[in-house]
Amino acid sequence: MSKKYVYAFEDGGKEMKDLLGGKGANLAEMTNIGVPVPPGFTITTEVCHLFLEQGDYPDGFADQLSENLESLEKKMGKKLGDAKNPLLVSVRSGAAVSMPGMMDTILNLGLNDDTVVGVIEKTGNERFAYDCYRRFVQMFGNVVMEVEHALFEEAIDKIKEEKGVKNDTELDAEDLKDLVVVFKKIVKKSTGKEFPANPFEQLKLAIEAVFNSWMSDRAKAYRTINGVAGLRGTAVNVQSMVFGNMGESSGTGVAFTRNPSNGGKEFYGEFLMNAQGEDVVAGIRTPMSLIELETVNADVYNELVAVKNKLEKHYKDMQDIEFTIEEGKLFLLQTRNGKRTGQASVNIACDLHDEGILTRDEAILKIDAKSLNQLLHPQLKKSASKNVIAKGLPASPGAACGKIVFTSEDAVEFGHNRHEDVILVRKETSPEDITGMHNAKGILTSRGGMTSHAAVVCRGMGKCCVAGCTEAVVNVSAKKLIIGDLVLSEGDIITLDGTTGEVMLGEMEMQEPELIGNFKRVMEWADSVRTLKIRTNADTPLDAKVALDFGAEGIGLCRTEHMFFEEDRIHLVRQMILAKDAEERAKPLEKLKKIQKKDFEEIFKAMDGYPVLVRLLDPPLHEFLPDKENKIKELADDFKLTVEEVKSQIASMHEINPMLGHRGCRLGITHPEIYKMQVQAIIEAGIAMTKAGVKVEVEIEIPLIGTNREFAYMKKLVVETIKEYGEAGSKEMPDLGFVYKIGTMIEVPRAAITAHELAPEADFFSFGTNDLTQMTFGYSRDDAGSFLPKYMDLGILENDPTATIDQNGVGKLMEICVELGRGVKPDLDIGICGEHGGDPASVEFCHKIGLNYVSCSPYRVPIARLAAAQAVLRKK
Amino acid sequence: MSKKYVYAFEDGGKEMKDLLGGKGANLAEMTNIGVPVPPGFTITTEVCHLFLEQGDYPDGFADQLSENLESLEKKMGKKLGDAKNPLLVSVRSGAAVSMPGMMDTILNLGLNDDTVVGVIEKTGNERFAYDCYRRFVQMFGNVVMEVEHALFEEAIDKIKEEKGVKNDTELDAEDLKDLVVVFKKIVKKSTGKEFPANPFEQLKLAIEAVFNSWMSDRAKAYRTINGVAGLRGTAVNVQSMVFGNMGESSGTGVAFTRNPSNGGKEFYGEFLMNAQGEDVVAGIRTPMSLIELETVNADVYNELVAVKNKLEKHYKDMQDIEFTIEEGKLFLLQTRNGKRTGQASVNIACDLHDEGILTRDEAILKIDAKSLNQLLHPQLKKSASKNVIAKGLPASPGAACGKIVFTSEDAVEFGHNRHEDVILVRKETSPEDITGMHNAKGILTSRGGMTSHAAVVCRGMGKCCVAGCTEAVVNVSAKKLIIGDLVLSEGDIITLDGTTGEVMLGEMEMQEPELIGNFKRVMEWADSVRTLKIRTNADTPLDAKVALDFGAEGIGLCRTEHMFFEEDRIHLVRQMILAKDAEERAKPLEKLKKIQKKDFEEIFKAMDGYPVLVRLLDPPLHEFLPDKENKIKELADDFKLTVEEVKSQIASMHEINPMLGHRGCRLGITHPEIYKMQVQAIIEAGIAMTKAGVKVEVEIEIPLIGTNREFAYMKKLVVETIKEYGEAGSKEMPDLGFVYKIGTMIEVPRAAITAHELAPEADFFSFGTNDLTQMTFGYSRDDAGSFLPKYMDLGILENDPTATIDQNGVGKLMEICVELGRGVKPDLDIGICGEHGGDPASVEFCHKIGLNYVSCSPYRVPIARLAAAQAVLRKK
Repeated sequence: MSKKYVYAFEDGGKEMKDLLGGKGANLAEMTNIGVPVPPGFTITTEVCHLFLEQGDYPDGFADQLSENLESLEKKMGKKLGDAKNPLLVSVRSGAAVSMPGMMDTILNLGLNDDTVVGVIEKTGNERFAYDCYRRFVQMFGNVVMEVEHALFEEAIDKIKEEKGVKNDTELDAEDLKDLVVVFKKIVKKSTGKEFPANPFEQLKLAIEAVFNSWMSDRAKAYRTINGVAGLRGTAVNVQSMVFGNMGESSGTGVAFTRNPSNGGKEFYGEFLMNAQGEDVVAGIRTPMSLIELETVNADVYNELVAVKNKLEKHYKDMQDIEFTIEEGKLFLLQTRNGKRTGQASVNIACDLHDEGILTRDEAILKIDAKSLNQLLHPQLKKSASKNVIAKGLPASPGAACGKIVFTSEDAVEFGHNRHEDVILVRKETSPEDITGMHNAKGILTSRGGMTSHAAVVCRGMGKCCVAGCTEAVVNVSAKKLIIGDLVLSEGDIITLDGTTGEVMLGEMEMQEPELIGNFKRVMEWADSVRTLKIRTNADTPLDAKVALDFGAEGIGLCRTEHMFFEEDRIHLVRQMILAKDAEERAKPLEKLKKIQKKDFEEIFKAMDGYPVLVRLLDPPLHEFLPDKENKIKELADDFKLTVEEVKSQIASMHEINPMLGHRGCRLGITHPEIYKMQVQAIIEAGIAMTKAGVKVEVEIEIPLIGTNREFAYMKKLVVETIKEYGEAGSKEMPDLGFVYKIGTMIEVPRAAITAHELAPEADFFSFGTNDLTQMTFGYSRDDAGSFLPKYMDLGILENDPTATIDQNGVGKLMEICVELGRGVKPDLDIGICGEHGGDPASVEFCHKIGLNYVSCSPYRVPIARLAAAQAVLRKK
Repeated sequence: MSKKYVYAFEDGGKEMKDLLGGKGANLAEMTNIGVPVPPGFTITTEVCHLFLEQGDYPDGFADQLSENLESLEKKMGKKLGDAKNPLLVSVRSGAAVSMPGMMDTILNLGLNDDTVVGVIEKTGNERFAYDCYRRFVQMFGNVVMEVEHALFEEAIDKIKEEKGVKNDTELDAEDLKDLVVVFKKIVKKSTGKEFPANPFEQLKLAIEAVFNSWMSDRAKAYRTINGVAGLRGTAVNVQSMVFGNMGESSGTGVAFTRNPSNGGKEFYGEFLMNAQGEDVVAGIRTPMSLIELETVNADVYNELVAVKNKLEKHYKDMQDIEFTIEEGKLFLLQTRNGKRTGQASVNIACDLHDEGILTRDEAILKIDAKSLNQLLHPQLKKSASKNVIAKGLPASPGAACGKIVFTSEDAVEFGHNRHEDVILVRKETSPEDITGMHNAKGILTSRGGMTSHAAVVCRGMGKCCVAGCTEAVVNVSAKKLIIGDLVLSEGDIITLDGTTGEVMLGEMEMQEPELIGNFKRVMEWADSVRTLKIRTNADTPLDAKVALDFGAEGIGLCRTEHMFFEEDRIHLVRQMILAKDAEERAKPLEKLKKIQKKDFEEIFKAMDGYPVLVRLLDPPLHEFLPDKENKIKELADDFKLTVEEVKSQIASMHEINPMLGHRGCRLGITHPEIYKMQVQAIIEAGIAMTKAGVKVEVEIEIPLIGTNREFAYMKKLVVETIKEYGEAGSKEMPDLGFVYKIGTMIEVPRAAITAHELAPEADFFSFGTNDLTQMTFGYSRDDAGSFLPKYMDLGILENDPTATIDQNGVGKLMEICVELGRGVKPDLDIGICGEHGGDPASVEFCHKIGLNYVSCSPYRVPIARLAAAQAVLRKK
């Protein structure tokens, strides 16, 4: 006996994807659990492989095909080509993974001038029958016989013109019948061949066309670009057609097994009797609510409810189903896990657990961690109608509406002084805009990606942001926002949806998030499972408090420079930078030290008992200098210099690639007095708070380390500064009554691959994956907006690497780093503080490579908690 | 019997560095080959280790010390502490590697109030004796007894003031005798202890001080920062003192065994009778030429010649020696390989080979490949006296002098139109300055490092450049060059030495390089040994010809964008960039194609039979846009736009970090028509030249690849373009009658670590180590000038990684890349085209990791050829 090449649906199962393709395996699965599916069979991927390799079908295939076809005819009580009772089938491709570029679907195969009559008799609907027929000729002519699509369209246009009608739906049965004739002539003229009337011939050609489409340029390009390899070919699914429009005892519908919006336990959907699937969607007739089906046909309704329950139990999840009723008989056409909101996701998981369908661990895994985002920010009211005028990157979730302003000053004026809601619109934001951003409800930028300044700061603030909206032209001097023909001015109102990236005209209604009981319950489950600690990136006591409420277990990144930008200190910072020498610099530094000390005291107090990682100054000094005339003037007056002189000093500090310039520990080495001041502030705050009964645990982090000598040099500076606070002459690190550690950020690729040289001296590593990604890819977060969208469109990048850790590249460096570092210091504490710390896929990766903690913005802490638990469960 | 802790010089040898330290091993070596060295002994590093660990000397050490001391006394016929005939010794530290921060030297140990009388009697020179004595007390007091250095200096100043003299040399014997008393009082007062009069006590304390200095903070910091680990401690060398000023039969001198300037076989040096080493150097008395020593003392001269010959034979190299004659007896104090010019290096190696001292392979290894640089560029006349006003980085070798100009236009005006020699002085250069650079003799920049634009372009042009001269303030608008108090204006003359980085005032005499016969001979030797191929980075047929003359075997990098900047095409390039759409872009592209085709034809013709690697467009498009008002106006007129509109378009293309921005293959993906045009030009040129009988072999390189999908996408574009030239419908790559390959540059860290994903599709890899270094370290070559010098000063970086491959970091990535790439494609062709391709240490590294070729600027090809041969020999 030859190998099995054709599987009836009842012979397969969901685990046979490689052989039957994804679609075939799923149809088999449904069939096998007793759900009524239109019968059919699947030709295996192996047949495709052999056919393409040998140019012919394997021995025994033809017989198996015949047998399965006969068996299908028997099941359906119809026969292929039978003029009285014709079997019509669909033919679909289906590989093990979903793949665009292959032939998709041929419907109604089996129709010819004889069988169409049988269909008319069965349906009593001549128009429907001929519409099926002309669609079949068109589809088959195009995808199987390779006739240009446009030729058919032209013919339709011509007949519509002749009849003086606008829509296809206005053509009657006769018109469609004529079209069938015209279409066949087109086929003959284009290919020199008659359109095949024999349904068996039709089937044979359709199967070959599916196989050949596996090697089409588009499909090959897709596999190359997407790195899909190791597949043998595509399967072919042959399935009997069922029709919901065979009269009043037929119908069709779609449904969710639970409410996808809030997770409520209601069978939620709609249907139409004597209709096709597309009628439900098209909106010409108003569908009925699913519960009404009970009145229309109680038997079918009860069967559908039973099927629904079976499917939920089997797939252990809320399902999105499509069904057809053909002459009172129910068929399921498709079932898949239903899309849902974050709130529904949480509620459904809890309910399924309570119903005994899911274990606690399964329930945890069912929730899309990313969707929790929606629970943590204000959002647009679902019912609101949208006037979308542009789309950018969904940079920071939540929604906001307000009057447009174009400068940080105006944001303060409108937002703070006049108490109005404003949206700050900028080409891009810089640290100088921080005050303006604080005073805006949302931020819109025309440039920059998911980790641009605006995006990062907004996510940190939990503020809505749409970034990199390239369609928008921002003219700051004219105070105009131009989108296509639309010109908006200061004061015009727009609404931003930071979850979708949409920009809408006018004010829209909002709703506050509901953090209901199930959410808390899921978090408790997650905490009992996860092993990764979750910290937060927080620069202020306020941030720290928000994060603690969300369950953070420490600060993984406190950026001292953010403190520098506040009104009361930026001037001191500028004095420090422009000082001629260390002596002149001493005065502003002393003042800054006192301010920073106070900041740290408050943060230590807020985080009592939790570790606080403080990063020493990171950005290049020129970022702190003003670019606005009045601020420059102020500075000039202060230094008794001319505006020109200050400008020239600012210009002399300009860098061509500041990202790769004089910043991080490079500043610590050239300007040791700044780092020294920061260490003093940290230690003095630690001593003061310890005396006040606070449990202090501080980690001093040196940024941008690239070589072990750099770290050794910096550590020496830190240690010597700390020694000033120990008992005199102590050679080792003094006991200050609280825990302090000295470690390094890993953000320069060189640091990652020389981790074994850094680890002996470092108390901890923290991956700065924002910069590590930028340097590993060579992408500047501020400039990548000009090509990254195209990269995503083309599928060159599957994910934005600034949003999700690129595991093959950046992740590989991280793995090497962990391995090298722990190789010399097995208990080395390693965490991550990049934006990726709040991305579920990245959190899972961090768990996999053995990090101790992830750190993310306060509003992402719950997401990270859940993702960390899921990582444990997936690894099992 | 206890272990051997003390080695007389005759018991050691040069291979015993770990035990005897570098200095001890070398003194032993000289002693053992029969060179007269002042006798002495070495206390091993193990004693140091045990002393520091146990706080005491090991058993048996004291006896061994006594025995060796007695034996030394016997050899010298003098006794330590003998008032009549005192033995004086020096005590020096010496670890296995040279290490600052340890106690260095104590001379004249053994002096006290009694023995000084003996010295007076022996030398008849009371002043000398007391000067030795006071120096000993000062040195011993400071380094052994830890008395502040300043206290002794104050005492000297005081006595000079009392005597009314300015210089130490004006103090007489009585003054110095008084100083001894004063110094001893200072020691007593500072330490509470008497200065030790007993020479045995002095010796014991000195040895302990050397050992303790191993653990001084400075020495420990040095070891930490420099990663020196695994050493047990320092050795101590005790050596008898000899004096060249014991009367007219004594003397001292220094010599080179051959002429260090041109390698001539002459015994080259000078001496002074009745003098100390420092007298020869101080220039108070005029030393005599060494050949006169034969007249003064023929026996000693002949002995010295014999020693010279022995040393050359033994060390197999030209030696730089120091000698002392004490009462007619010759002593060698030091010998080391002599420093020499490039020319001397070549000639000496050839001569030593001809004399049978060196094998051919040894001769190849003797030449410092870097020093060949001097043979390949005009240089300053040796005799010229220099007025150095500033120092920058030696960015491109050779020398140049001329009038200062501050703009590219002025360089053309003075240099081209007025035929004057000019030096172009800029803060930094950009591609817009190319024409000016062409017309200048040399370039001076105040910013940028060894791979800044100015440095790279100048090395490519073989033009002298001093870059990153941070002392220089360049005010372009005022046309002033300000160095400290010196203000130079346009037209003032300066001289640059690109080999040393010196900037000199005024015009200096130059000399042309002599490429004499031995140079050619060494190159032939090298070619017969090396396995690495040597290619060149050449953008023009002229560059290609220069490189071929220097022995290049192909082009490893032809940067197409450099062609874009020439006068006749930059305007077309700008039209192309500012075009609204692909259609408008088509016209200038078509014109550019014709021009590029001609360029490639000429290059293929020049390189007939050698491979030519062409890199597709790499820099961001905005680099081609003008920043000068008149050029902007021109462009605006051309496009019928206002100047403001063009400016705004230019501004919209501005990037914050262009290095990490929209360039390389990212341009190829967003602007495929540009890459397509370039491929067409390459292929059309290849077809035309093949028809003309030229053997064409072209490698098309895609720059800045970071992911395999990016490369797959780009390769598809290239292949599709090439297919246009093959027979119609051909599915595979068409045969065009010449060899063409498609490969990628490896310059993004991610490409290196995902090489196994890239290799299956790529015909070749070429390391772009300039960018790879910038991204791996996170250093922008344009901005690193603000911190790199400090890094070098502090020893945080041993070498500038932009000049020599950083083997632990960047090199590690390269190794990983080669391993991964060859893992899936064992015969993958891999080269390097970064600036490092011309650096000998980097060439050796490339050989070690198995690259196929290195590519460097034309003027470095001979260096690379030699370095590649040395790499083979060193690996043996």
